[in-house]
Amino acid sequence: MRMIVFAFVAVVCLIVVFEAAGQPGPKGKPVSEATAECLDCHEIVSPGIVADWRRSRHAKTTPSEALKKPKLERRMSSEKIPDGLSGVVVGCAECHKLNPGKHKDTFEHSEHKVHVVVTPADCAACHKVEVEQYSKNIMAHAYGNLKNNPVFQSLEKSINGLQSYESGKLTEGTADSLTSEDSCYVCHGTRILVKGLKEVETDFGEMQFPVLGGWPNQGTGRINPDGSMGACTSCHPRHEFSIEVARKPYTCSQCHKGPDVPAYKVYEVSKHGNIYKSMDGKWDFDAVPWKVGRDFTAPTCATCHISLVASDGEVVAQRTHRMNDRLGWRLFGVVYAHPHPKSPDTTKIKNKAGLPLPTELTGEPVQEFVIDAEEKAKRDKTMRKVCTACHSAAWIEGHFDRLEKSVETTNKMTLAATKVLLEAWEKGAAKGLAQGDSIFNEVIEKKWVEQWLFYANSTRFASAMAGADLGVFAGGRWHLSRNLREMTDWLEFKAKSNKEGK
Amino acid sequence: MRMIVFAFVAVVCLIVVFEAAGQPGPKGKPVSEATAECLDCHEIVSPGIVADWRRSRHAKTTPSEALKKPKLERRMSSEKIPDGLSGVVVGCAECHKLNPGKHKDTFEHSEHKVHVVVTPADCAACHKVEVEQYSKNIMAHAYGNLKNNPVFQSLEKSINGLQSYESGKLTEGTADSLTSEDSCYVCHGTRILVKGLKEVETDFGEMQFPVLGGWPNQGTGRINPDGSMGACTSCHPRHEFSIEVARKPYTCSQCHKGPDVPAYKVYEVSKHGNIYKSMDGKWDFDAVPWKVGRDFTAPTCATCHISLVASDGEVVAQRTHRMNDRLGWRLFGVVYAHPHPKSPDTTKIKNKAGLPLPTELTGEPVQEFVIDAEEKAKRDKTMRKVCTACHSAAWIEGHFDRLEKSVETTNKMTLAATKVLLEAWEKGAAKGLAQGDSIFNEVIEKKWVEQWLFYANSTRFASAMAGADLGVFAGGRWHLSRNLREMTDWLEFKAKSNKEGK
Amino acid sequence: MRMIVFAFVAVVCLIVVFEAAGQPGPKGKPVSEATAECLDCHEIVSPGIVADWRRSRHAKTTPSEALKKPKLERRMSSEKIPDGLSGVVVGCAECHKLNPGKHKDTFEHSEHKVHVVVTPADCAACHKVEVEQYSKNIMAHAYGNLKNNPVFQSLEKSINGLQSYESGKLTEGTADSLTSEDSCYVCHGTRILVKGLKEVETDFGEMQFPVLGGWPNQGTGRINPDGSMGACTSCHPRHEFSIEVARKPYTCSQCHKGPDVPAYKVYEVSKHGNIYKSMDGKWDFDAVPWKVGRDFTAPTCATCHISLVASDGEVVAQRTHRMNDRLGWRLFGVVYAHPHPKSPDTTKIKNKAGLPLPTELTGEPVQEFVIDAEEKAKRDKTMRKVCTACHSAAWIEGHFDRLEKSVETTNKMTLAATKVLLEAWEKGAAKGLAQGDSIFNEVIEKKWVEQWLFYANSTRFASAMAGADLGVFAGGRWHLSRNLREMTDWLEFKAKSNKEGK
Repeated sequence: MRMIVFAFVAVVCLIVVFEAAGQPGPKGKPVSEATAECLDCHEIVSPGIVADWRRSRHAKTTPSEALKKPKLERRMSSEKIPDGLSGVVVGCAECHKLNPGKHKDTFEHSEHKVHVVVTPADCAACHKVEVEQYSKNIMAHAYGNLKNNPVFQSLEKSINGLQSYESGKLTEGTADSLTSEDSCYVCHGTRILVKGLKEVETDFGEMQFPVLGGWPNQGTGRINPDGSMGACTSCHPRHEFSIEVARKPYTCSQCHKGPDVPAYKVYEVSKHGNIYKSMDGKWDFDAVPWKVGRDFTAPTCATCHISLVASDGEVVAQRTHRMNDRLGWRLFGVVYAHPHPKSPDTTKIKNKAGLPLPTELTGEPVQEFVIDAEEKAKRDKTMRKVCTACHSAAWIEGHFDRLEKSVETTNKMTLAATKVLLEAWEKGAAKGLAQGDSIFNEVIEKKWVEQWLFYANSTRFASAMAGADLGVFAGGRWHLSRNLREMTDWLEFKAKSNKEGK
Repeated sequence: MRMIVFAFVAVVCLIVVFEAAGQPGPKGKPVSEATAECLDCHEIVSPGIVADWRRSRHAKTTPSEALKKPKLERRMSSEKIPDGLSGVVVGCAECHKLNPGKHKDTFEHSEHKVHVVVTPADCAACHKVEVEQYSKNIMAHAYGNLKNNPVFQSLEKSINGLQSYESGKLTEGTADSLTSEDSCYVCHGTRILVKGLKEVETDFGEMQFPVLGGWPNQGTGRINPDGSMGACTSCHPRHEFSIEVARKPYTCSQCHKGPDVPAYKVYEVSKHGNIYKSMDGKWDFDAVPWKVGRDFTAPTCATCHISLVASDGEVVAQRTHRMNDRLGWRLFGVVYAHPHPKSPDTTKIKNKAGLPLPTELTGEPVQEFVIDAEEKAKRDKTMRKVCTACHSAAWIEGHFDRLEKSVETTNKMTLAATKVLLEAWEKGAAKGLAQGDSIFNEVIEKKWVEQWLFYANSTRFASAMAGADLGVFAGGRWHLSRNLREMTDWLEFKAKSNKEGK
Repeated sequence: MRMIVFAFVAVVCLIVVFEAAGQPGPKGKPVSEATAECLDCHEIVSPGIVADWRRSRHAKTTPSEALKKPKLERRMSSEKIPDGLSGVVVGCAECHKLNPGKHKDTFEHSEHKVHVVVTPADCAACHKVEVEQYSKNIMAHAYGNLKNNPVFQSLEKSINGLQSYESGKLTEGTADSLTSEDSCYVCHGTRILVKGLKEVETDFGEMQFPVLGGWPNQGTGRINPDGSMGACTSCHPRHEFSIEVARKPYTCSQCHKGPDVPAYKVYEVSKHGNIYKSMDGKWDFDAVPWKVGRDFTAPTCATCHISLVASDGEVVAQRTHRMNDRLGWRLFGVVYAHPHPKSPDTTKIKNKAGLPLPTELTGEPVQEFVIDAEEKAKRDKTMRKVCTACHSAAWIEGHFDRLEKSVETTNKMTLAATKVLLEAWEKGAAKGLAQGDSIFNEVIEKKWVEQWLFYANSTRFASAMAGADLGVFAGGRWHLSRNLREMTDWLEFKAKSNKEGK
């Protein structure tokens, strides 16, 4: 019976594939034989992604055609394309069969060696420069920067560890791997492990597929089965891989919206965000280069941080996939804002206290590991160049003066909180480093974390993008000051309680 | 003077109604005489809803035409239409004059017997199957499931009851009915009571209208004047009744966005939500069946839970208006996640402690009242079928393994909180069931509620839709663990305070 | 070298300006000589805003043409236009060179006297009525109402003041001006100070520009260099000045989304918000007058509060830029909801306790300073007229009955919180007015602020727009009742702690 289904499906496939009326597809464009074979069945078994791909630029252009475009309009950065790829559209086989020897997830599938996880190393065949830039990106190292940093591991355990309450005592357990994959590493990226092969019943009979640990995942620092880091699909979702999606702020909001990194929330209530949301229907999100005033009239996240922006005949900003190329300050995820680390791998950093943190506990940056004033100025300047397309020098200066001040004041408000915490440890109201205890498991410690991870971050983002209330009542300065008071009250109550307890 | 206005208006009406240029309307389609009379005046007195209706499919099709469509493309599920309805477009009279004998809100209006509240029982004339399915929906029972459950009534009172502070004591009063209608029952639905008739001055002279209690309301479990339950307008807003609106996630977000049920918030930051928000301008939200890959390239709420989804020639998922047909777990609104209740009327449930809750206070489901493993597996399978249009079996399995784990761990984190609460009651730090006191009125009790109603829910939704930060810092595991610590600290402070107070 | 660049740029300019293909622009419309000169260079140095302007109505119409439209369709309210302005399109020079004598920020720029900050007084040349209305708007006075009210200044200091922790004590410093500009005054508006001139290096050689304090800013109550109040660009962003943007709710959300004023959040989850977000792509946001049912089928913020709304041939609501013309109650930003103040300048108000607040500390409005019942009824009626385009009298009455009740109950819940606070002051658990201390710096005081500024506000907005969960679990009644309990617990713990401390 299964064989009859298979035969029927196969016949239908042959008829359907290139006839599909009304369906966007590679009209007249050369499709590789291997890809045609993939489409034969996947048009039936996974119609959604095939239709998505048919709509994509990949399905409508061959790399050799793409290379003929003027340099500024080109979406491909490789100058030379591997043999066999350049004359056909970029279909299933062109990506899923690339570099088979390097992929631990390569398996035999209908007489093809294919791999499940397409990686930046695969995309580099055509998008070399972007992949190289991205590899120097702090985001590409998001897995290791979290997993291999003992301080952050302790924070992670305090969040994900299963807790139980018995005989008046709260006990913090360890986190299981499914929970980890389902929380921090959704954004940071998982390590994809190939655990073997598994027999699966399909419409085409029994087939073997790899068993992958940490899968699915599209986090920015994913460790891939070929050893590469990152997932282009974090921002360019399969299988349309649309530049439009990546340029819209919803892409960034997947990971940059929560209280720990409310960038998108700030953008939403900024003037830029307002204009974007009101007028985006009239903009061109596909044009390369992206022309200010013509294609869009207010920036999205991509405009300021990534895209190749131009005005008539002049480049306003070069495209970059090292996302901090235009950023001097590192504003979030850390105890104190500080100049960006020199290396995207932040696990190498050590401060005077021996902790893998880019600042001391009192806020001073560890100079050896962060960019110097000259590099910081260069990055600030690159960013400000983008602003000039619409704003005067005075406007830009006035705006960024506030960000500088905000970095200073939020760091000071974090310092005040740190001092309360240090006193709590000293007085024995809480147990910290000196007592060999976690610095993240008690209420005052959690309030300290919220001081920098939530409120200081939010305030700084609000300054960076003029997002008003995110810097005041929506998780900003109101909360910075309220939280400080709550910390001192907690310390008072706990110290009294402990004294009486004795 | 009023009569002159009336005469003038009437004349204008006659001229205007079918001449209105540029206005979408029933060009050439037969309109019933009764509806034409309604339009005569309402075009003037309520132009917004008339214009809305003119744009609707109801205004442009007769049921008999609609019945001629191939079954899969049909938007009407009734096979036979009541006499008098099938040959005219679905206008004012066709709905507001249906089943007059059953409607307590029927009144004489310009020589017609009309009723104010059009109900699912009215809509069933043409949409029989959907109304039947919806009636078996837990949402259709949302009024009674809240109003007739003493535990939830106590929670409601603790929220809506007016409090006063006199001589050092906080007193919790009862909630007035306007406040109830304005809070819980906006979503759950009110009971619409017909209180009599009232003389009203209008442009057409004195007229009588029914006085309705609990009105306006469009909650999902509204108790209607004809005894039926629910409001189709919860999701299909008047008077365009557009399938497009119902398929967009903003409809669901009306009630499913707050911290108690942050489904939409999770969707927004999921990959699916990103693609939807970036690309929706290019999708077809009106097509029936809804073809994956062609009409849309990422699911909305409706895709996974309700819509008839198809790929070329094949049904991926049958349409259902019993919203938990594709859901095994009930994730929210309850102390512990558990398999869905068998009956949509949850007031019949009793656990071992005699409480109307589908789980024990320690988390075990009350087997007798919840679906069995086989039914749960069947529903899970139906949901996963939708995923297969774009995702491999391994992807889907990996995804749902995390949800299963998340159900387990969040239930355990709720159990830990429950144990702290039980100890607080035992130690006399708070008063609970044994003391005949509300279990929702003290700080530790409210924190316990937030543990399951806010943070466990949010974490589970984040797992169900890969919504990252909603499972961590945006109301997720960070808050689950922080809240537990705050509960134990509160217990410590309160116990000490009570001891000293004695 | 710089001169060569300049010469080259100038030549290119001359060629480019009126030839720019594909660029929206003033085809055939008369551009003033002065504006043409501006465009010569700014097309190059600030291409974004020039392109934005080319797309604007300002670039495509002359005031004299605009005056020829039927009155109801007119976007200009001035009947007579100053000489020299009426025959040319509204370009750079027409606004930036207006009223030079009144502008302290006027400076010599390429042989023109131009000013940086275009103000409502400038816009009044063509939009006289709107500017007059806006000047009577509480929003126009947002700077002074905050800056010159000692109570709010104390609140501001408690939020923005830098805090330090030394020897077990938290000290609250004063706020620096950059922080103020970057927080409260982003929305309230800054005072723009002209501090002198500054030499700046540009592509055209050294040039002088004014140095402005409090710049940039687009807050609603900005104090401008010509003494006028407000910024039309708060809602009509430069340089397209699109009515479409102002009519979309994202504009209002810039300042009305945070927990202190969650109007947009409520709108988002309301039925109106759902329909807007689902259907806005099919609406006409540019039509004047704005025709209900034709141009839109659900209201945005502007529809109910500002816009000229019409149905065929009849005005439903007159346009107003005094935003509380249709509002009886003032719902937010104050301790108790109360009828709107008579004067937009609220600094003149004094209650019995001598505080500049429109209510007593126990909630009674200070009758002398708030509108009377008749005026309130008139405003309520104007608002309800808008509703009638789609809703019946009974529907509207039922809806607003709930708002009235919600005003009453939230005021009572605030009163209960005030009583707890008064007792805390009385018992010495906190220091308040009688002790000459800030009423905003201690935890219980901050909780009191959140009672009215966050939770009571949110609940009232939810009632006003049927925004469900914002009135319950998303910052509504749940939080009102929880917060009260936390206040009494805090008072208990603190009082005990103080007692023992002695």
